[in-house]
Amino acid sequence: MSLPDRGTVWIVGAGPGDPELLTLKGRRLLADADVVVHDRLVAPEVLALAGQAECIDVGKRPGSPGIRQDEIDALLVRLAREGKRVVRLKGGDPMVFGRTSSELEALVRAGIPFEIVPGVSSAIAAPAYAGIPITDRRYASAVAFVTATRQDDKSDAVDWAALARIPTVVVLMGAARIESVVAALLENGVPAERPAAAIEWGTTTRQRVVRSRLGDLVGDVRVAGLGAPLTIVVGDVAALGERYSWFTPLAQRD
Amino acid sequence: MSLPDRGTVWIVGAGPGDPELLTLKGRRLLADADVVVHDRLVAPEVLALAGQAECIDVGKRPGSPGIRQDEIDALLVRLAREGKRVVRLKGGDPMVFGRTSSELEALVRAGIPFEIVPGVSSAIAAPAYAGIPITDRRYASAVAFVTATRQDDKSDAVDWAALARIPTVVVLMGAARIESVVAALLENGVPAERPAAAIEWGTTTRQRVVRSRLGDLVGDVRVAGLGAPLTIVVGDVAALGERYSWFTPLAQRD
Repeated sequence: MSLPDRGTVWIVGAGPGDPELLTLKGRRLLADADVVVHDRLVAPEVLALAGQAECIDVGKRPGSPGIRQDEIDALLVRLAREGKRVVRLKGGDPMVFGRTSSELEALVRAGIPFEIVPGVSSAIAAPAYAGIPITDRRYASAVAFVTATRQDDKSDAVDWAALARIPTVVVLMGAARIESVVAALLENGVPAERPAAAIEWGTTTRQRVVRSRLGDLVGDVRVAGLGAPLTIVVGDVAALGERYSWFTPLAQRD
Repeated sequence: MSLPDRGTVWIVGAGPGDPELLTLKGRRLLADADVVVHDRLVAPEVLALAGQAECIDVGKRPGSPGIRQDEIDALLVRLAREGKRVVRLKGGDPMVFGRTSSELEALVRAGIPFEIVPGVSSAIAAPAYAGIPITDRRYASAVAFVTATRQDDKSDAVDWAALARIPTVVVLMGAARIESVVAALLENGVPAERPAAAIEWGTTTRQRVVRSRLGDLVGDVRVAGLGAPLTIVVGDVAALGERYSWFTPLAQRD
């Protein structure tokens, strides 16, 4: 990499879990980075590609306060001003519910050059590894993505009535609030018999899938003991997952 | 690759255009393939990674009948039965409006082993290369993807009234039907002043972006002469694209 790249921040999607779903560009940038600022859920195999770079974990942990978003923003600005080649590595794709705008805003205000490097999103890949074609033309003319982490944030209340009318709804980070998500869809007219699936650790060797119906999803997920990271799919397409199932995690092979 | 992989079909996302957004897994499979059955819009640099494999172009061209979907399905089955390692290479991600279910159904019926290899979707990456954070938490609690190619297909009519209430709507393959898409959103209550953007050849060196408002989008796109492949973003987030713009296509550098 040439000298003008010093002091640049690359906001890179690490992909959904399977380390081979990293992009070629992501791998090149990791190899050339001076410092990698990463989330908690990035696969160790991906971090290992960072070579000699310093790795700083800024991931949030359930039940711990962790580092605040404004502290991450300030860290990126400081590292870039030190002339470092900075990779900000995020799980999945950085533009899908990743709080990237906060970091972009800080970089723009500080006049720091940056690039965005998209990654494979869990919202698409976790269903794919569970055999679920989220936009199958027989059942779904549209698909919507929503995150379950914002429900207490009144400034951006989710319009569940509108989502209830979208044929396929994918809920990211749905583990902690699965009950309220399911209740909101049921209250807004989605039938309890609508097929639904929950995918824990999608695309990884630890992947587990619960195939159910919306009305039974909370109970079935609890019985199976699924937790975060969890991707939820609600829609007729979820019923196809068994027929098109193809991925057997190593942990389940004998 | 070991012998048991012979006669397998890998359905691989080639990514949105920038050849470096191919995944590591996609590159490995292309290098090991015997035959690559690909769409028209796959980047030549990605196809070049296929090494010694035979490449079969099954892409649809505007204004030409082209090869039918059932012929593609049958081709995949025939090649796999010949013991070939078959890569079915699709633009973007194969599970986002890619007619992949038709191919999955054919493979399942024929008992052909297959794998799905997700790719970076144009629905996320084209906006990202135009500086648009589709799920910015200040403006968008959810995002929906829809394709403009199905509007005449009554079997899966699009619920534009529901989509009109989703804060960010991304329309894929929107060039030919941009007028009816915009009309449908306006008729269902999206204000004419809602920010909107159109991205031609997103993520490639040929990328061009029109930043507009929903009510002016059709005229502005026509004046600029944008055509397929076109990604349309409707939502307040589209207004952020100029502030967070970072990608300058080579063709526009001097």
